[in-house]
Formats: sequence, C-alpha cells, structure tokens
Amino acid sequence: MSFQTTATIASFGGKLLKLKHAATTTNCDMALNLFLPPQAQKSGAKIPVLFYLSGLTCTGDNCSEKGFFQHAASQKGIAVVYPDTSPRGLEIQGEDEAYDFGSGAGFYVDATKEPWTKGYNMYSYITKELPEALFSAFKELDSEKVSITGHSMGGHGALTLFLKNPGMYKSVSAFAPIANPINCPWGQKAFKGYFGEDQQEQWKAHDATELVKQWKGPLEMLIDVGTGDNFYKQGQLLPENFIKAAKEAGNDKGINLRMQPDYDHSYYFMASFADEHVAYAAKHLGV
Amino acid sequence: MSFQTTATIASFGGKLLKLKHAATTTNCDMALNLFLPPQAQKSGAKIPVLFYLSGLTCTGDNCSEKGFFQHAASQKGIAVVYPDTSPRGLEIQGEDEAYDFGSGAGFYVDATKEPWTKGYNMYSYITKELPEALFSAFKELDSEKVSITGHSMGGHGALTLFLKNPGMYKSVSAFAPIANPINCPWGQKAFKGYFGEDQQEQWKAHDATELVKQWKGPLEMLIDVGTGDNFYKQGQLLPENFIKAAKEAGNDKGINLRMQPDYDHSYYFMASFADEHVAYAAKHLGV
Repeated sequence: MSFQTTATIASFGGKLLKLKHAATTTNCDMALNLFLPPQAQKSGAKIPVLFYLSGLTCTGDNCSEKGFFQHAASQKGIAVVYPDTSPRGLEIQGEDEAYDFGSGAGFYVDATKEPWTKGYNMYSYITKELPEALFSAFKELDSEKVSITGHSMGGHGALTLFLKNPGMYKSVSAFAPIANPINCPWGQKAFKGYFGEDQQEQWKAHDATELVKQWKGPLEMLIDVGTGDNFYKQGQLLPENFIKAAKEAGNDKGINLRMQPDYDHSYYFMASFADEHVAYAAKHLGV
Repeated sequence: MSFQTTATIASFGGKLLKLKHAATTTNCDMALNLFLPPQAQKSGAKIPVLFYLSGLTCTGDNCSEKGFFQHAASQKGIAVVYPDTSPRGLEIQGEDEAYDFGSGAGFYVDATKEPWTKGYNMYSYITKELPEALFSAFKELDSEKVSITGHSMGGHGALTLFLKNPGMYKSVSAFAPIANPINCPWGQKAFKGYFGEDQQEQWKAHDATELVKQWKGPLEMLIDVGTGDNFYKQGQLLPENFIKAAKEAGNDKGINLRMQPDYDHSYYFMASFADEHVAYAAKHLGV
C-alpha cells in the first residue's frame, strides 16, 4: 500500500508529488499526482484534501498541468489528489481500442461484467483504497476533511460518489459532468460494457440524475457547463435532466448550475473557473 | 498580412484566438495564439500587449495551455501574444533533426548562413512583421504599450530583443533565460548554425550578457530561475554571467534576479510565477 515517489516538482510554493502504488482493487500499479500546498510543510499540519477526478482519455497529469487548481489550493492550504482514470495494462482484450471505454475510461464504477471485473473497480479504488493509502502514508492530510470535484466523466464520478456516500465528502463540484449517463451515448456504452444489460439496478445506481431523486436532507453543489461545449450540444452531459430530477425531488435549491457563455469542454474552461471551485471546496472544508 | 482565425476559445473571461498568417520574413505560414482580455471587448478599447516568447521545442500552444498568463492578463486587461518558435516546413535539410536547432529552435535571430537564411528570421518576425500585422488587424491593441517576456530560449529572446531595441518594449522579464548563449552548448550550436563562425560580431550581437554591457541609462528587469532547474545546473542558462556583466557595466541595480528554491525548468515553474510577471509588465504598461 505504500507509495513510490517518482518525482517531486515545485509548484505554487508547494510540491507536486508524482506517486505510484500497487493497487489491489484495480489489480495493477496506479499512478497519481498529489499536490501538497505550502501549509503542509508545517509540523503537525492537518491539510484538507480535494479529490479531482479526470475525464475520458486523461491521466492525473492533464489537470495538474493545465487545470490551475494548484493556484488557489496553495492559497487556501488544500491538498489536491489527481488519480488516474482507469487501471492500465491489464491485458484485457479491447481495453485500448476505444477512447471512451477501457483504458482512460473507467467511469468510476466497479465492473460486474467479465472480463472487466479483473480490475475495472475505480469506484472502490477512489472511495476506499486510494484514500486509505493516502491517509496512511501522508499524516499531514486530514481524513476528516475531504471534498471532491471532477470534469466530464470525472464530473459524473464526483457527483455519483458524493451522492452514493452521504457524509464522505464535505462538498462536491463539477465541470461539464456527464450528469445522466444512462441517457447518453458515452454512459450507455460504458455501463453496458461494465455492467451488462441490468439497466434498472446497476445502471441507475451510478447515474447522478437517478441518485439525486433519492437524496435526503439539504444538498449543495456547484456545477459549471460551457454553452460552447460540443459534448453538451451533442447531449452527452444533460445537466438539464439532472436539475429537473433534483427539482422534482425538491433537492434543487442548493444546486448552482452555471451555464458559462461560450466556454468549451477543454482545460481552458476548467482553468478559468478552477479558483472558484477550489474556493467553494475551501468554504465547506472550513479553510 | 491578414490573419485567419482557426479557433476562438473562451478563457478567463476573454478570448484566445488561434491565428495563422502567411509571413514574409519566415517564408511560411506562421501559427500563433492571441489572448484578448475581457477589456478588449469594450468599444474603442486600447489594450496593452505582452509578447511571450517560448522555449525550445515549443509552439505558441504550450504556454497558453500551461503557463496561466491569461489569469492575471484578464484581470489587468493585457493582451498576450504567443508566437511560434521558428518557421515550419521550409524543407531545409536537417531542419527537423534536432530539438535544439531548426524547427522549434529559431533562437529569435535572423540567420546569415545558408540554407537557414531561407526563413530563419525570427528576430525580424517578432520585432517587425508580427507586431505590424497584429496592430494592423486588431485595432483594439495599443502599439504604444508593448512588453516582452519569455522562457529559456524565449527568455534569451526577450532579453536580447529588449536590449537591442531601446524603447520598443516598456518592460522585460524572463523565466530561466539562456542569458549568455555564446558561452553555453545550446547557444553555441545555434549561433554556429545560424551565423557561422563570426563570434566577435554576430554572436555577441545576440548575447544578452554582451548586450547588457552596452546599455545606456536605467535598466529594470525581472528574472526568475529555479535552483532545481537541470539546465541551470548544466550551465545552459548562466544568469550569474549576465549579472556579473551588468554589474561591471554599472547596469545591475534594477535587475531583480530571483533564484527560486527547488523550481525546475517546466511550465509548473512558470505557472507559479506568471501572475507576478504579468503584474510586473502591467506596472510598466500603466495598467
């Protein structure tokens, strides 16, 4: 469970650690980046943690290079975890054939369909194995103060992990999330591949629009979607479905969906609002 | 001389334009990025301009994706120009063979040696053709308020273009500049290739450490170099030579060389200090 540090990079007064560890849930070595803000260097520091879940095709590198989260995280004193998006190199037939399924496209679920059960367990990896390993290895991280955010497929991950685990995360936000995967091509392909045809149970159990209907108690979220986002226009994101379901369930009051004029699906979009998402998490993390 | 806009990307409240134009000096189509801050949208706006010169192997894309100059530029109301680092596709034998010579390595000089004279004229392109084309096509840009910065080879470009053209730029700053190219392997290879053996005249005419000796009047600069920068350790940057020469000429008082602990040569380093370099330019540009 221990980590190997393959590089330490100075960033915004803190350190970006490139880490690798042998993960049981995913059945392979997993790479990730961990940003430790300058405040983590103080003796006895307890630093809140923001998990950032990446989108299709990405690794933990893209956002740590292009997302600009370190800027505000270094000011607020928040650590940022950038995990990978799937297991790698499991030698499952077809795992590297599509950009939207298999490698780089784990969808933050535990597969129940062969052969993907061999290690496509990103849900367990992100909610259990990775945080346990991090909090065990990095005593400066505060396991009681954890928030989550993500982009596109990772926005789906952030919303669903938050909604499925009340209390686990102090806050959730998302950039251009796949908000209703059971009703969009990306989600349908992934869920069919990882779960098979069990739409009523397994698909719905990982669909934010279905999950928000069942939420009990107050609900707060920050979601940004660009009006120039081609995947939004193509119906891959469906934030309106999510809002409609939340509204029907009486859970929409605290959901701040901001349609950002002209912004696309890229890291240019995320960088532009990263400061605000970190500030949103900081508020809920009490820093 | 007119530009073709191949993409318009929303970024930090402004627009990043991906531009292309047929350039005479470089004898080929040149791509660049132009960030227009939100303030440029006001009718009659006159926006100061910061030229950012990239390092070896880069195009104008790397820094516009990873450098975070747009963050402060959007707040200060400064346009940022990200040009390419060389002509492309001139079909000169050997132009694509090395990362540090030819394509991606124009060194911001006008070659005097065949066959590079065919278009390796990045000095004329950056100081004359490109600004003239930009100020002609984008009336919202203020041709009287121009500053320059750059990274590594582009830091060399920023320092030498500033020192060779008193009054052209309101300010100069640099990240990890090649500050004494005639005394480092990168510079010696490039100058030998583009100029031949004329070290006394042509080499020295594009060496910041030589140029600073001849500067008349007050001199101000901001230069950041990371102490963890492997190219610094290998003697490719030589900022100490530059400072020593400036000091001997009595020109060092206004040069703020900051050795930044642990930082490397990457965009993580630049992103960490981009806000400060934009603020430095802004002060001199009067915004």
